Amino acid sequence: MRIILIGASGTIGRKIGEVVEKDHELVRVGSKSGDLRVDIESTESIEQFFKKVGPFDTLISAAGGGHFGPLAEMKAADFRKGLDSKLLGQVNLVLVGQHYIRPKGSFTLTAGVLSEDAVVNGANLSAVNAALEAFGRAAAIELNNGVRINVVSPGVVEDSPGYFPYFHGHIPVTMDRVVAAYVKSAFGAQTGQVFKVI
Amino acid sequence: MRIILIGASGTIGRKIGEVVEKDHELVRVGSKSGDLRVDIESTESIEQFFKKVGPFDTLISAAGGGHFGPLAEMKAADFRKGLDSKLLGQVNLVLVGQHYIRPKGSFTLTAGVLSEDAVVNGANLSAVNAALEAFGRAAAIELNNGVRINVVSPGVVEDSPGYFPYFHGHIPVTMDRVVAAYVKSAFGAQTGQVFKVI
Repeated sequence: MRIILIGASGTIGRKIGEVVEKDHELVRVGSKSGDLRVDIESTESIEQFFKKVGPFDTLISAAGGGHFGPLAEMKAADFRKGLDSKLLGQVNLVLVGQHYIRPKGSFTLTAGVLSEDAVVNGANLSAVNAALEAFGRAAAIELNNGVRINVVSPGVVEDSPGYFPYFHGHIPVTMDRVVAAYVKSAFGAQTGQVFKVI
Repeated sequence: MRIILIGASGTIGRKIGEVVEKDHELVRVGSKSGDLRVDIESTESIEQFFKKVGPFDTLISAAGGGHFGPLAEMKAADFRKGLDSKLLGQVNLVLVGQHYIRPKGSFTLTAGVLSEDAVVNGANLSAVNAALEAFGRAAAIELNNGVRINVVSPGVVEDSPGYFPYFHGHIPVTMDRVVAAYVKSAFGAQTGQVFKVI
């Protein structure tokens, strides 16, 4: 299968790539590095990307950021960061990509544990992650030609110790389990699911 | 108590107002009608509104819209409608309003059943509603001075028969039960909760 991996140079993306490339043709994509580039905050960039990349079976996105900071100081412009990047950026990969993906292909997007399990400073990412999970459930009932979509929602990952002080009592999840969730989504047969790794 | 009701002329807002005004000082607010006006898509308008309205104990928002239409035709600009209006519009009432609300006051925002129970055409509102629910959970752990926040998440309401054809098998909820959820949120003591009316 031909796999597009968006966010290929990220902490999680790198590990997904190492596993997936063993058995598949992998196109690594990033905003600043990779086989191809895309700015997921730009519809024009996404459209140009899909025209260039050609036919594919599977898109895995581990891309996009949000705002992490105190609610008392949060402004609309801060909140919009997560909406434009991690939320609409990934959603737009599906909105545009649905017209390019092969029949029976799949999309896998990345949310995160803050959707359900809030921490201080996390209000923007809680909203963004929950929105992505709900989008996956809703998009799954409308995608045509047997195309599937799932969302992986990992807890704080063992490879990101910088986050640990903000996630009191969250038990870091192993990268192996996180990568397994992407493999389940991309190469299994389920759709409309949130694969939590907690 | 002094209550601000945003979306006071809407289907749900009107009924909330009728119940709340019996025992409280009610300020009805809308984008085009009401005691005061606010455009929730504009930070400047929201800031001017809070400066003008003066001290208050309770803000109830039943305002904001989203995009309802087929995923196959959905564009980023469509999806952004719900992000700008129902999601960020309501979130920004909290981000700005937290600096004006009286101690022990409360915010109540409006989501909807599509957060968990998807229908065709509903991908944008599924995402928006789930984001609002998660924002409420997250904001509750950071609001200062005993200020509370909850989110009411109603099913399709009996007073909105125009939606029934799109909500196969959803049992319309009575307006009395919907209004009760706002009353529970505003005048009860819970915080960080999603009050589902389904």
